Amino acid sequence: MKQVKRIQSFLNTNNIDAAFITTPDNVFYFTGFRSNPHERLLGVLIFKDDTPFIICPQMEVPDALATGWTGDIVGHQDTENAWDIVVQTIQNKVGVIQSLAIEKAHLTVERQEAILERIPEIQISRIDEEINKLRVIKTEDELVNMRKAAELADFAIEVGCKEIAEGKTELEILNAIESAVKEKGGYQMSFDTMVLSGPKTASPHGNPGDRKIQKGDFVIFDLGVIYNGYCSDITRTVAFGEPTEDKREVYDTVRRAEEAAVNAVKPGITAMELDKIARDVITDAGYGEYFTHRLGHGLGISVHEFPSITGVNDMKLETGMVFTIEPGIYHPNITGVRIEDDVVVTENGVEVLTKFPKELIVL
Amino acid sequence: MKQVKRIQSFLNTNNIDAAFITTPDNVFYFTGFRSNPHERLLGVLIFKDDTPFIICPQMEVPDALATGWTGDIVGHQDTENAWDIVVQTIQNKVGVIQSLAIEKAHLTVERQEAILERIPEIQISRIDEEINKLRVIKTEDELVNMRKAAELADFAIEVGCKEIAEGKTELEILNAIESAVKEKGGYQMSFDTMVLSGPKTASPHGNPGDRKIQKGDFVIFDLGVIYNGYCSDITRTVAFGEPTEDKREVYDTVRRAEEAAVNAVKPGITAMELDKIARDVITDAGYGEYFTHRLGHGLGISVHEFPSITGVNDMKLETGMVFTIEPGIYHPNITGVRIEDDVVVTENGVEVLTKFPKELIVL
Repeated sequence: MKQVKRIQSFLNTNNIDAAFITTPDNVFYFTGFRSNPHERLLGVLIFKDDTPFIICPQMEVPDALATGWTGDIVGHQDTENAWDIVVQTIQNKVGVIQSLAIEKAHLTVERQEAILERIPEIQISRIDEEINKLRVIKTEDELVNMRKAAELADFAIEVGCKEIAEGKTELEILNAIESAVKEKGGYQMSFDTMVLSGPKTASPHGNPGDRKIQKGDFVIFDLGVIYNGYCSDITRTVAFGEPTEDKREVYDTVRRAEEAAVNAVKPGITAMELDKIARDVITDAGYGEYFTHRLGHGLGISVHEFPSITGVNDMKLETGMVFTIEPGIYHPNITGVRIEDDVVVTENGVEVLTKFPKELIVL
Repeated sequence: MKQVKRIQSFLNTNNIDAAFITTPDNVFYFTGFRSNPHERLLGVLIFKDDTPFIICPQMEVPDALATGWTGDIVGHQDTENAWDIVVQTIQNKVGVIQSLAIEKAHLTVERQEAILERIPEIQISRIDEEINKLRVIKTEDELVNMRKAAELADFAIEVGCKEIAEGKTELEILNAIESAVKEKGGYQMSFDTMVLSGPKTASPHGNPGDRKIQKGDFVIFDLGVIYNGYCSDITRTVAFGEPTEDKREVYDTVRRAEEAAVNAVKPGITAMELDKIARDVITDAGYGEYFTHRLGHGLGISVHEFPSITGVNDMKLETGMVFTIEPGIYHPNITGVRIEDDVVVTENGVEVLTKFPKELIVL
C-alpha cells in the first residue's frame, strides 16, 4: 500500500477525488494482482482518502484475494455492465466524485466515454506522469528481482550459444532456449525470443524462421526472462565460424559504442547525452545511417517502459532508474550486430545487470 | 485491398473523409502487415478515395514492404513525432480532412488528443462496429487457416495427454506441449498455455506451476496455436486415475452442456440462446452457480474477438462466424471441468474445427 499512498498524496495535493488505474502492469505495481483481462475491465480505483478497490472479472476475484491486497475487491460478471458497477461502487463509498485522474496513454476513448456518460460533469485529468515518476525509481526489492531476471537472461544466452550448430534452424535454437528457461523454474520470457542468423541479422525486428545456420553467419539473440513480475532484456551477437574482417569491424564498432554508453551512465547525465555517446562512436566509424533506432528503453514490470533513451529526451537520469543500452548496426551488405545490456543508475555510476561476455565469441 | 475497399465504401456512404485503424490485428487484417509496435505508433490510414498508407516505425518499413501491400508506407524515427508525420502525410495527399473514424475501443485518450491538437475542428466517429462486421464473417481463405490452427490444437492436446504421469509438474507438461508445437513447424501459441491439475482446476484462470500430478486428479488443458495469423483455442479435461463418481458427474454435465450448445448452432440462433442452452443443462443438474463465465467468444486473428457469446447478447449468428463454445463447472469441493471447441456457423448448421475426442479420457 506504500505506492497507493503516494498516489493518494498526489490526489490530495492536486485536489483530485480519485484515480482510476487500468494498465495491467500498473494494477500489478499498486496491488500485487497480476491479470490479463483481455477485453474485460480490470482496474484499481484509488480515492483521495477512502479505501481503494480493485474491479476485475468475477472469476478472478479469488486470485485477487490470494495476493493479500488489503483494499476492497469488486467482481463483475460477463452479463453485467462493469462500468455501472464501478460507478455504483464509487457512489456507495464516497458519493459523487467531481474529478478523476486516468491513464490517458492507456484508457481507450470508448472507456473514457463510458465514464463521461455516467458522470457527465466529471473533470478528467492525467495520472500517467505521476505513475511513471514512481515506477521509474526502482526499490531495492525490485532490483533484487531484476538482478535475478538478468541472471536468467544470461543463462538463456549461454544455452543459445551451446545450441548453435551447422544446419540447425533459428527456430530449433529458439525452442531449446525457451525450453531450458522453463525447465529451470517455469519462468516466462519477457517477449517472443528472437534468434536471427546470416542476412536476417540486418533487420532490427525480424522473425525467426526455418533458416539453417551456416558457417560465416552472425547470430543475434534478443530475449528476456520474467522473474517475480520483473523483466530482463538482453541482446548478444555471436559468430559461427571465423568472421570476415568487415564483420569484425561492425562488431567492434557496436561493442565500443555500447561500452562507451554503459561507462557514461551516472546520475545527472541526460538520456540524449547517452544516446549521443553511442551514436557518435558508430557515426565516426562511418556506420551512422545503419543505427536506425533509439539507444534504449526503461525496463521493469514492463519490458518497454518509461523513460525512452532517445536523442530527443533531455531527462536527467537518476539513481534507481533501470533501462537498456542497445546500439546496433544493420548493414544490408555486411551483417547486423546489436549488443544490449540492462543497467541501473547508482550513486557512483552504474550497475550492469546482464553479465554475459561481450568479446566476440566465435563458435 | 478488397477489405480496404469495404471501408472506403463505408466512408463514402457516411461521408467521412478517412479512417485511422490502429489495432495491430486490424492492421494485419487490412494490410497483411503484422507488427507489435509496443509503444510506437502503428496504423493504417484509409481515405475515402485516395491511396491508403501504413504508418510504422522506420525500422519496420522493409518488413511492411515485404508483405506485398500495394498502398503507401510511411516510416517514423524514434526521434520524430509520429503524429506530425501522420498529419503531414494526410495534408500532402488530400489537404485538410474534416472527419475521421477511429477505433474507439482501441485508440487511447492521449492519441485522440494528439489528433485533436493538430486538427482541432475534426469530427471524430467510430469505425469499430464496421470492422467487426467485416471480420466476423470469415472468408474461405480464413477458414482454411483456422482449420489448420485447430488441427494443431488437437495435436497439442494429444501431446499433453501423453505427457501426463505421476509426479510430473504442470509446468513440465506445459513445456513439453509448447516444445512439440514449435518443433512441428515453429508455430506460436495463441496465448499462454494452461495446464491445471487437482484442486487448481476449480479456478477458470489459474496459473500453471510446480504442482505435481497425482492419481485421482483431473487435468485441464486450455491452449491454442496460431497458423498463418489465425488462432485456435481448445480446452479438454482428462482424468489421471479412475475418477470418483461426483467428478464423473461434473464431467458428464459439462459435456452434455457443451454438446447441446454445439448441436444447436445454426444461422439465425442468437448468442444468448446458445448460452442459455448450455447453462440450462448445468443449472438443471444443480451446478448453475459454478458456471461463472460466458459461453464463449469470437475467434480469428484475435484469440478473443467479436462477438461475445453471453446471456445478454441478442445478436443473431450468421454463416461464416467462428467462435468458441466453452462451458465449465468450477466446484471448489469436487473439481473443475471445462470443455471447449471452435465452431463455424454453416448454411446447414455447424462445422466443429477442433476434433479431439470429448468422452472422458482416463489415463
